[in-house]
Amino acid sequence: MNDVRVGVLGVGRIGRMHAELIQRRADGASLVAVYDVFSESAQSVAAEFGARVAASPDELINATDVDAVAVCTPTDTHIDFLVAAAQAGKPAFIEKPLSLDLSEVDRGIAAAEATGIAVQIGFNRRFDPSHKSVRDTVANGEIGDVQMVRITSRDPAPPPLSYLDGSGGIFLDMTIHDFDMARYVTGSEVVEVYATGAVMVDPAIGEAGDLDTVVVVMTHENGAITTIDNSRQAVYGYDQRVEAFGSAGIVASDNPGVTTTTRRTAAGSAGSTIPYFFLDRYIPSYLAEWTDFVAMVRNGAPSPVTLHDGRAPLVIGLAAWRSFHEGRPVKTKEITP
Amino acid sequence: MNDVRVGVLGVGRIGRMHAELIQRRADGASLVAVYDVFSESAQSVAAEFGARVAASPDELINATDVDAVAVCTPTDTHIDFLVAAAQAGKPAFIEKPLSLDLSEVDRGIAAAEATGIAVQIGFNRRFDPSHKSVRDTVANGEIGDVQMVRITSRDPAPPPLSYLDGSGGIFLDMTIHDFDMARYVTGSEVVEVYATGAVMVDPAIGEAGDLDTVVVVMTHENGAITTIDNSRQAVYGYDQRVEAFGSAGIVASDNPGVTTTTRRTAAGSAGSTIPYFFLDRYIPSYLAEWTDFVAMVRNGAPSPVTLHDGRAPLVIGLAAWRSFHEGRPVKTKEITP
Amino acid sequence: MNDVRVGVLGVGRIGRMHAELIQRRADGASLVAVYDVFSESAQSVAAEFGARVAASPDELINATDVDAVAVCTPTDTHIDFLVAAAQAGKPAFIEKPLSLDLSEVDRGIAAAEATGIAVQIGFNRRFDPSHKSVRDTVANGEIGDVQMVRITSRDPAPPPLSYLDGSGGIFLDMTIHDFDMARYVTGSEVVEVYATGAVMVDPAIGEAGDLDTVVVVMTHENGAITTIDNSRQAVYGYDQRVEAFGSAGIVASDNPGVTTTTRRTAAGSAGSTIPYFFLDRYIPSYLAEWTDFVAMVRNGAPSPVTLHDGRAPLVIGLAAWRSFHEGRPVKTKEITP
Amino acid sequence: MNDVRVGVLGVGRIGRMHAELIQRRADGASLVAVYDVFSESAQSVAAEFGARVAASPDELINATDVDAVAVCTPTDTHIDFLVAAAQAGKPAFIEKPLSLDLSEVDRGIAAAEATGIAVQIGFNRRFDPSHKSVRDTVANGEIGDVQMVRITSRDPAPPPLSYLDGSGGIFLDMTIHDFDMARYVTGSEVVEVYATGAVMVDPAIGEAGDLDTVVVVMTHENGAITTIDNSRQAVYGYDQRVEAFGSAGIVASDNPGVTTTTRRTAAGSAGSTIPYFFLDRYIPSYLAEWTDFVAMVRNGAPSPVTLHDGRAPLVIGLAAWRSFHEGRPVKTKEITP
Repeated sequence: MNDVRVGVLGVGRIGRMHAELIQRRADGASLVAVYDVFSESAQSVAAEFGARVAASPDELINATDVDAVAVCTPTDTHIDFLVAAAQAGKPAFIEKPLSLDLSEVDRGIAAAEATGIAVQIGFNRRFDPSHKSVRDTVANGEIGDVQMVRITSRDPAPPPLSYLDGSGGIFLDMTIHDFDMARYVTGSEVVEVYATGAVMVDPAIGEAGDLDTVVVVMTHENGAITTIDNSRQAVYGYDQRVEAFGSAGIVASDNPGVTTTTRRTAAGSAGSTIPYFFLDRYIPSYLAEWTDFVAMVRNGAPSPVTLHDGRAPLVIGLAAWRSFHEGRPVKTKEITP
Repeated sequence: MNDVRVGVLGVGRIGRMHAELIQRRADGASLVAVYDVFSESAQSVAAEFGARVAASPDELINATDVDAVAVCTPTDTHIDFLVAAAQAGKPAFIEKPLSLDLSEVDRGIAAAEATGIAVQIGFNRRFDPSHKSVRDTVANGEIGDVQMVRITSRDPAPPPLSYLDGSGGIFLDMTIHDFDMARYVTGSEVVEVYATGAVMVDPAIGEAGDLDTVVVVMTHENGAITTIDNSRQAVYGYDQRVEAFGSAGIVASDNPGVTTTTRRTAAGSAGSTIPYFFLDRYIPSYLAEWTDFVAMVRNGAPSPVTLHDGRAPLVIGLAAWRSFHEGRPVKTKEITP
Repeated sequence: MNDVRVGVLGVGRIGRMHAELIQRRADGASLVAVYDVFSESAQSVAAEFGARVAASPDELINATDVDAVAVCTPTDTHIDFLVAAAQAGKPAFIEKPLSLDLSEVDRGIAAAEATGIAVQIGFNRRFDPSHKSVRDTVANGEIGDVQMVRITSRDPAPPPLSYLDGSGGIFLDMTIHDFDMARYVTGSEVVEVYATGAVMVDPAIGEAGDLDTVVVVMTHENGAITTIDNSRQAVYGYDQRVEAFGSAGIVASDNPGVTTTTRRTAAGSAGSTIPYFFLDRYIPSYLAEWTDFVAMVRNGAPSPVTLHDGRAPLVIGLAAWRSFHEGRPVKTKEITP
Repeated sequence: MNDVRVGVLGVGRIGRMHAELIQRRADGASLVAVYDVFSESAQSVAAEFGARVAASPDELINATDVDAVAVCTPTDTHIDFLVAAAQAGKPAFIEKPLSLDLSEVDRGIAAAEATGIAVQIGFNRRFDPSHKSVRDTVANGEIGDVQMVRITSRDPAPPPLSYLDGSGGIFLDMTIHDFDMARYVTGSEVVEVYATGAVMVDPAIGEAGDLDTVVVVMTHENGAITTIDNSRQAVYGYDQRVEAFGSAGIVASDNPGVTTTTRRTAAGSAGSTIPYFFLDRYIPSYLAEWTDFVAMVRNGAPSPVTLHDGRAPLVIGLAAWRSFHEGRPVKTKEITP
């Protein structure tokens, strides 16, 4: 069976990674073309992995040898490229967040629905085998009715300030992964959000109007309560844990160690750190994204992360910001009636 | 050196346990007298452990062969016995919560301060070696500045409804342990409380005006944010974990297993449950309470859990109830200006 | 139901521990009399736990208020006291090893069988909940046919040389526990033994003709192969692990930690030591011994550790010494045709 | 800097894996040519990864565009290709075992030394981060003097009988990895070997004159004692653990889980299996082999696994077979005086 030939728009850090996975690791997918506003980036990625450089986003999206498009460009361009892919009738993979502007998101959804293209949003953590196992354990009823979910998600170090600016702030840039995880694990929409937070890592983050340490409590339609905590700086590594508690038990994913080695002396026991770089932890999840994408494009399998799954966390994130600024719980329907 | 001769007021489940620990396990303490409104209880405990039955609380408190008093009676009698011990100049151990009535607590504190008796409140979890190690790791700066604390505290099954009535509700009966733990681990007072919760375990608990599943987010004077989650029913056992995250690392206490045995088959791995009964988990902490109590009475060591440590969690608990009822974060100084 | 009234012969470290457990912790047993060649020891234990000092072993064994005898004296006196208990028709608990002399053991067995007294040997590790769970998992077929067993048993520090002399050497003093464990876990007799070892901890142990570091490989009647390793000095604590591998899976007991607390910093993770003192690890197993002893004496329950269970490990130990000295595998039937 | 251009001889399962790693994953290496006696295999691998098919082994070894040779052919051809590579002056990577015939090995070593080519033997487990951490901890003295090593190495299922025939039997085919690990971890040669074993998995293995379950005890020059146990069938997965015990502590590598997820219910806790397929466990180690190979070829770094490291385990394996057949410990110098 022929490979799904993918064109990648935007080959910065994340786009370059997708290009490599598509060409070298993912079964059933191959890289045919790349585009980046920085042509040097496009040329080096094209050369390294054996693909051509597209003349423009439109050329790439409409090229006859491009079966599907991966949108890894800056957030504020996602919807335009989604609309273009929809008009070209090309299936699209779009990195998170879909957009910071709810009306833009709705424009994109309308365009996609108009031509019925298949779309997958890049919430890669759903594909992490351990987090997925938490969700599957909940979904198959092994812990009964889910009552409380705890999500810890901490970066090893803050990104450059330049990156933060335009990111929508921690709730839309970082916590948005956890908003998606909460919906994924509980299988239930979020109805209320309470958010608190502070600047504990770097005052410059505060001066930029953002937070670096936050706690969010959310109530789901099914009554479950999710608690999320984030920090921009966990010096011990990339701390990613999900726990679901239910009427019949509990299930939790933990961090892997860099090694499985333990030392014991009279002073106590010692082990390795946990992975520091997000790719060390999540490469298998990014790879699994492409397996599902190929199945969606080739076999018409349902999208594992739909446009609605891309929209809902944005609504929650906007509610989180309002909750923080107004110092009260906020209903999601205050954001999108 | 002579044993500290202890008289125990109230020998229900918890009082009987203290009587046994004092007489059979604790170094430097011995049981001389017990009292209970149910004289059969007093007689059976006295007979089993070799002590006399006091004629009345006053007789016990003032007896010349009683060096110190342990108050394990119903909550609403704690302050009266504290005052009586103060007037008798006898050191007192008082079970938690000190009282459900702040003005009562203040009356007790005033009486104790008037005669300067040594008092220790029964927050036993401070003495659990694993939780204590979390606190010590924070206190000695190993994780830098503490930024976020996570406390999970879940009972294996709800107590009888009869017990709940008069308990002050989940925040004053159950979460109060975690309010104390948050102050203990961070070493900082709580300034704001947000509480949410629901009835997920037993509708009868809700009909009694109480909750069985709660999440509390608190801000400390030093800026740290503590998240607490409680459930009245964790079918897998007595789930008790404390985690402190700081600028230089993280420290966490986990649940012990009933055994250390692991089985692996083609189907996966399997291990034991965690302790189900609270005494299986916390007997060492109750025993350690008495070691410190003996040191306090004999050598004038400072109280490991002061009257102020008994008062502060009550304030937090009252703030939690107000937060829940009003659906907003509540400052502790709204409760006690 | 009346307590089983126990008299304890020999109240050195282990005898004193049994006296305390019998009097203060074990349900259904109480301490009535103690005897020790060092009368000060007998008097202090009698005073501390409330029992009388017997005038002589015979007086204790034959006293009408003594229902059962616990023999915690030096090894070379075990059989004489077993015979005396048999003649008095008193059930007996006997510390390991039964004796270092096989003919003596057989004399004791003959005497016990002649009067049919109930006897339990003090192989306490069978009662450790984690090791017992390994054995039960094997016994109930969860891992299929047991094929290989691995036993690690290491002391935190060597005993005084004075103790070693007369101990029968490491195979009869220390490894004998593991010989019992191998029979217990596999449920099968040992037919061949290969032993190697060295002096790595203290040359003085070698000068005394003993070893401090040994490895033993044994073949069982059912074909299973057991590997044992011992060291007299594991500086990180009292290392006690049992693993059984079978056709359908594996089961293993691990060491508990002193706490469940883990710290993580940029340098890695760190945890507590494992218990250092054998009582910290095995008190629950010693206590469980008495529960079974009471059931055996009161209700005629079968002995959990029979005289045969006391004899077999001695045979294996003698085979181990011969294997080491002759540098070849030795069949147990070479020791006891 | 130019890539090291590698030609791969033999592209069966393991050769095909090396070809993929060299071309797609390893930095500084690229695949230029492949050869296999089954030309279809050569063609499919060449086509998939973009390399040419060599006309013959000699053509590949001597091709000007081949900088180095990877020998992944059947064992009995390794030495001929090593000699050919030596004559061509090409650095060589050779899969384990080097050969089953000691005189052949010595012929290969002589040829390699004559022209001084760099050679690396494919003992990949040395490159596993967890096992390597065990060795490094020993090497840097963190556990003091190493006294005992325990190696468990069990396959999930036996290979086809056709494969076993010609493999040299379990000691030369499977245990040989552990013989290498024992030398690697202790940094000391093996002087004596005792081996026992049985047929517990499949009678057909026994009829072929081989064993499927073995235990080996070895004494090293430095006095350390290593115990190895192998099984051809661990139904729970690919069980690979190394533990080193020393005068100052212990260090051990454990199996990773397939996920980090744990479930708890009233029935107990459950987790994932361990990796079943050896590539799931050891791909990182195979990749690290190529990193070191590139450093050796490009920069003249010392070989991480020398020809002597390839020879020594063969000697130990031959001693193990003799020990098993003669039922006694065998000195390695009996094999190679």
